[in-house]
Amino acid sequence: MKHFLNTQDWSRTELDALLADAARFKREKAGDALKGKSIALVFFNPSMRTRTSFELGAFQLGGHAIVLQPGKDAWPIEFNLGTVMDGDTEEHIKEVARVLGRYVDLIGVRAFPKFVDWQHDRQDSVLKAFADYSTVPVINMETITHPCQELAHVLALQEHFGSSDLRGRKYVLTWTWHPKPLNTAVANSALTIATRMGMDVTLLCPSEDYILDPRYLGWARDNVAESGGSLTVSHDIVSAYAGADVVYAKSWGALPYFGNWGPEKPIRDQFKHFIVDEAKMALTNNGVFSHCLPLRRNVKATDAVMDSPRCIAIDEAENRLHVQKAVMAALVGSHDGRDS
Amino acid sequence: MKHFLNTQDWSRTELDALLADAARFKREKAGDALKGKSIALVFFNPSMRTRTSFELGAFQLGGHAIVLQPGKDAWPIEFNLGTVMDGDTEEHIKEVARVLGRYVDLIGVRAFPKFVDWQHDRQDSVLKAFADYSTVPVINMETITHPCQELAHVLALQEHFGSSDLRGRKYVLTWTWHPKPLNTAVANSALTIATRMGMDVTLLCPSEDYILDPRYLGWARDNVAESGGSLTVSHDIVSAYAGADVVYAKSWGALPYFGNWGPEKPIRDQFKHFIVDEAKMALTNNGVFSHCLPLRRNVKATDAVMDSPRCIAIDEAENRLHVQKAVMAALVGSHDGRDS
Amino acid sequence: MKHFLNTQDWSRTELDALLADAARFKREKAGDALKGKSIALVFFNPSMRTRTSFELGAFQLGGHAIVLQPGKDAWPIEFNLGTVMDGDTEEHIKEVARVLGRYVDLIGVRAFPKFVDWQHDRQDSVLKAFADYSTVPVINMETITHPCQELAHVLALQEHFGSSDLRGRKYVLTWTWHPKPLNTAVANSALTIATRMGMDVTLLCPSEDYILDPRYLGWARDNVAESGGSLTVSHDIVSAYAGADVVYAKSWGALPYFGNWGPEKPIRDQFKHFIVDEAKMALTNNGVFSHCLPLRRNVKATDAVMDSPRCIAIDEAENRLHVQKAVMAALVGSHDGRDS
Repeated sequence: MKHFLNTQDWSRTELDALLADAARFKREKAGDALKGKSIALVFFNPSMRTRTSFELGAFQLGGHAIVLQPGKDAWPIEFNLGTVMDGDTEEHIKEVARVLGRYVDLIGVRAFPKFVDWQHDRQDSVLKAFADYSTVPVINMETITHPCQELAHVLALQEHFGSSDLRGRKYVLTWTWHPKPLNTAVANSALTIATRMGMDVTLLCPSEDYILDPRYLGWARDNVAESGGSLTVSHDIVSAYAGADVVYAKSWGALPYFGNWGPEKPIRDQFKHFIVDEAKMALTNNGVFSHCLPLRRNVKATDAVMDSPRCIAIDEAENRLHVQKAVMAALVGSHDGRDS
Repeated sequence: MKHFLNTQDWSRTELDALLADAARFKREKAGDALKGKSIALVFFNPSMRTRTSFELGAFQLGGHAIVLQPGKDAWPIEFNLGTVMDGDTEEHIKEVARVLGRYVDLIGVRAFPKFVDWQHDRQDSVLKAFADYSTVPVINMETITHPCQELAHVLALQEHFGSSDLRGRKYVLTWTWHPKPLNTAVANSALTIATRMGMDVTLLCPSEDYILDPRYLGWARDNVAESGGSLTVSHDIVSAYAGADVVYAKSWGALPYFGNWGPEKPIRDQFKHFIVDEAKMALTNNGVFSHCLPLRRNVKATDAVMDSPRCIAIDEAENRLHVQKAVMAALVGSHDGRDS
Repeated sequence: MKHFLNTQDWSRTELDALLADAARFKREKAGDALKGKSIALVFFNPSMRTRTSFELGAFQLGGHAIVLQPGKDAWPIEFNLGTVMDGDTEEHIKEVARVLGRYVDLIGVRAFPKFVDWQHDRQDSVLKAFADYSTVPVINMETITHPCQELAHVLALQEHFGSSDLRGRKYVLTWTWHPKPLNTAVANSALTIATRMGMDVTLLCPSEDYILDPRYLGWARDNVAESGGSLTVSHDIVSAYAGADVVYAKSWGALPYFGNWGPEKPIRDQFKHFIVDEAKMALTNNGVFSHCLPLRRNVKATDAVMDSPRCIAIDEAENRLHVQKAVMAALVGSHDGRDS
């Protein structure tokens, strides 16, 4: 049984097939690939696009999505093995995953880091626990990576450049300031998929502190080795933007200060000038700008950048619907659809 | 592209067509006018009837409704232009409306006033922002007016009187007491639609303080001029009820004290006797009573009035389903259904 | 019009028919028994399995479920008659039930006790108010009993024993410790249905304090008289488990201390050893273990018991889907499906 936890677990051929399916779903909205099927969307964190696009995608393919918010409108869940559950959690992931597997055909999970201990959060243990105990395929709806966003992003780039081949494009993943120390998930994902597609990738961030987790740098290097392209880490805005075909922005907290955010804040606050603005975009090769959304305007990117025709963030957001339909259809097809 | 923000934006012919469609939907529950279509229901405030009736209406016509509650299970939204978004809001209405427009075919918005500054609230800026930036039709699910309630109300009156022509009926919109200073939306709407239908309308309220916003009095006067009928403002219970065919109750806070509710409270508390009771109803022309619900029993109306066969509030509530199906079907028909 | 408030209101023939329908729905997932129909799921308390299984069951039979959470995403409801509603409640059950009856074909209600006054809670007044005022059938989704769980439990036992006849089986309902004083609903239900099915039932609990409400002991005795079997109350773990075919665990607070939970806590805390473990299960007749879930592992039952092939709690949970489809289909069939 196949899960969709990370694009890195899927072959390039499989990813290309998902992207082709997504493009097809974009042309033709209705279908019956999920007729009578269902997906549980388990949200430990808020969502707008993800829930809407999954719920709608299921509907448009004849299926049904059920939204569950543990600890809010469902019981809080225990993830550790062997625990004497005399604290706050009411139910163990083993039961949650097994029972859901009896009800639905797919399970989507959104579980952001807890932002206390990166060594713990980087294990992605909530998602993995669902995958371990579920008897139906599990989809990552953003944990410490965001593979659905990756596919939507790539599809938007393929559409923009009019080609499924993105090799040779200069791709800049730029850190931007945000008042809070955010999740690295989309940054990890951008690094992963951009190298996978063979682009020449620059990770632009203010300092060593903001470099991403070695796991994802390792994936990126593996991808470079396999697909061509390159990976550069830069702290210099001007040279990073120079000649870029794609600028992708994301904010995140510095990993060395993870859980100790007090001292990180004044460091982060020095780098507000990483905002994506017209002056920086003018350095690019008439590059496109995108972002996963939600985006704080005039904090991460200026109004001028967001409202420019070179901004493809809305296309990327729309593509969430199409790629997720492709992922759901592929996973249901790979599975008998019911535990027994 | 047409929105459904206020009945005043729609011609009388169009409104009559919506009411006729609603009556047809009431006779014939199932349909396919929304087959494969979807509506996002964006709730900034709680709801029972509105959500249930929209969700069900979409289902019964082959469509699907997605409920979003920004700031609760979705990201908090910024509505001002040009803001440096370094506060609490995570996402700008421009992106929210544009992205939703890529996903769904219709957007419903409920956004009550903030009750701090009427000059601000009376701009209806949340609803207008959705209408401005959305690429699909927007439906007002109650902001500072409540046009869906208007249609449901009129349909119930037409059913009761056995005629689509309500001209010549004496219609009393009576203020009633409530422990909190409520929204004027339904009162504004009642005034608007009752005059539109050519009825002889009396706005009964305790004092000058409780007169509605000039915009809606202006609409009412325009409607009187166009459709016949009349508009009277009264503070006298007995003469207002005398000979009434319709009594419609609503409570609201006094606009001159808007946001300064402390001093308004003792004023309001003098008028508990505005409650709709059997004695007052006995003054009418065997009139019907209605209310938009939720209604606090024995505060706005007595048990005897609510449980009387002359109370048509349940019919009006039911009609929400039918009129909203008519509105959704009309708007989807007026639009290609997708942004592109 | 028939409601599904308690199994005790339904004849044994009717219950057997529901169980047979459920088994059929388990074999054949899709159907059209609820085509175009809808159910409102009114939750005053959280839920995972109940909501998922009802929502999914409605979908799989062509219908649609609408989830309402009064006081959270819907208005708070008043249940008392004649009240002057000048407090927190915004809407009376009369209007809520009547309006919902105009919209949907079925209403499900989850309303746990308030845990302050058992004499009040034992009246089951929320559920009864819905049944009194609703014009469509009402389903108990757990109040002070949990009849849907009863059917799911019995179906799992019938599957396990390969026979619909459970007479002669030794059935132990064992109290277990929990950090909080929980609802007696599932215990009341287990006692009711196990005696109904003619099993030899032992209610094992730490002391007189933990005996269930006389109403349910009365039902159990009535059932014993009608269906054969027996009812024993025991405080002795070893003799209760000896030779048992079924061990069903549930925790609950002691009724004599209801609402006065301070002094109950140290009493309850003496009985942690009621946990279901392998040593106790070894005393049984190779018995099966089950629980309604959520279950706190290593508090109510050990990991070894939960992970054993003799644990049928997941089957029972799955069966919720199937029995509820049977209940919904039966109730919709018994009713014209719309108030008029």
